[in-house]
Amino acid sequence: MKVVIIGAGNVATHIAKALKAVNVQISQVWSYHYENALLLANEINAIAVKDLAELDNDADIYLISVKDDAIAELVKHLSLCKGIIVHTSGSVNIDVFVDLTAYGVFYPLQTFSKNKEVDFSNIPLCLEANDGKTLAILKDVASRLSNNVLEVSSEKRKILHLAAVFACNFTNHLYAMADEILKANELAFDIIRPLIAETANKVQNALPAEVQTGPAIREDKETIEKHEELLKNQPELLEIYKTLSESIKKTR
Amino acid sequence: MKVVIIGAGNVATHIAKALKAVNVQISQVWSYHYENALLLANEINAIAVKDLAELDNDADIYLISVKDDAIAELVKHLSLCKGIIVHTSGSVNIDVFVDLTAYGVFYPLQTFSKNKEVDFSNIPLCLEANDGKTLAILKDVASRLSNNVLEVSSEKRKILHLAAVFACNFTNHLYAMADEILKANELAFDIIRPLIAETANKVQNALPAEVQTGPAIREDKETIEKHEELLKNQPELLEIYKTLSESIKKTR
Repeated sequence: MKVVIIGAGNVATHIAKALKAVNVQISQVWSYHYENALLLANEINAIAVKDLAELDNDADIYLISVKDDAIAELVKHLSLCKGIIVHTSGSVNIDVFVDLTAYGVFYPLQTFSKNKEVDFSNIPLCLEANDGKTLAILKDVASRLSNNVLEVSSEKRKILHLAAVFACNFTNHLYAMADEILKANELAFDIIRPLIAETANKVQNALPAEVQTGPAIREDKETIEKHEELLKNQPELLEIYKTLSESIKKTR
Repeated sequence: MKVVIIGAGNVATHIAKALKAVNVQISQVWSYHYENALLLANEINAIAVKDLAELDNDADIYLISVKDDAIAELVKHLSLCKGIIVHTSGSVNIDVFVDLTAYGVFYPLQTFSKNKEVDFSNIPLCLEANDGKTLAILKDVASRLSNNVLEVSSEKRKILHLAAVFACNFTNHLYAMADEILKANELAFDIIRPLIAETANKVQNALPAEVQTGPAIREDKETIEKHEELLKNQPELLEIYKTLSESIKKTR
């Protein structure tokens, strides 16, 4: 099994390292920024490639992990590659590869950041392929990384990605807003870290609607008014406070 | 040390059990709903009390954990009690007790739900008291429960509570919206649980603004448009999607 990594961002880096850790050989790394390809290649004992024309044509899998809107253009440069070509995007349809012979999607439903190790063993790896044989090969590789391998259509994958934006990206932004409120009052983010951990922990064994707490779900008008008063000079935070409180009230 | 618990909701229950676990004696439990007082009293080997007039007058601490707007009224019935009277609210000023001789606040900055055990040892316990002697007694009790005992003024506590609404209550509501999106498309909430856990985990050692990911922070217009299209029949989710995406973009 020989894999070529196309891209050297957070997702490419984490997948490449995880593959290397289970002894899958990564032969080459290409990136728009050669220095990034060099950095990643160096970490996983692969060769950094400057020009797409230099790519091995006989790798088993070409894993494209670049910005969504760059995938279609990249595909044009891979016509000589004989292996399976996959991307790792949550929202790009598998049709982007329609002119190829063996292709698929290898979407890890997880958030990746630089310098933050991630345990791959329970990451949902959402796979899609153009035929059964290709899917079997992708399943084989994915199951070396994770116990949570799923077959997911392009349509369902888009939904997963959208739900992930709410559950992860928006959630992290709310953490950032909490930090903004604390900082403005000389309080450290440290104080709410246990709360953040427990909030995520609670829904590991319950549905979020069952464990909603706070002034909005109690319709505690007095507290809500106090909070709105505290936010009166931060109109953006106030708008978000009102919008989300109203939305919570409707679930009562 | 003898404690009386006034209230039998989530916060009262969790604190009472935690006190019992470190061998602090709970003598009585009172609640607006006698059956709730009975249930809690039974769990912690205390006596349920029907009428406030039956309360021990010689307990060391009276811990009031009821709805915010009920605290002031309750205080009127505690004039014969000789111990320290505290409430557990994030947003009620310590002044609510101004006519008493020994009083304070015992605010656990955590989210509590029925049937979900919580590890008290790292919960920030935010204390406030009318004098040094009272504070020392509260600190003594709090430090038996947690390694994270803080002295916090009423003003700062209100800010903490507001930040907690963003970091916990709103975050949980975003999880619920993610679940709504998944359910509408016959996908299980299970699939995004690892993502939720990792999102909270990432900010335990980083600031949220440093680890923001997703289409809005990348200004990935194409993906944002796809998501808005997917939400076109769910106007409330669409509004929240737009509001939070715009807010994230401004942090670039």
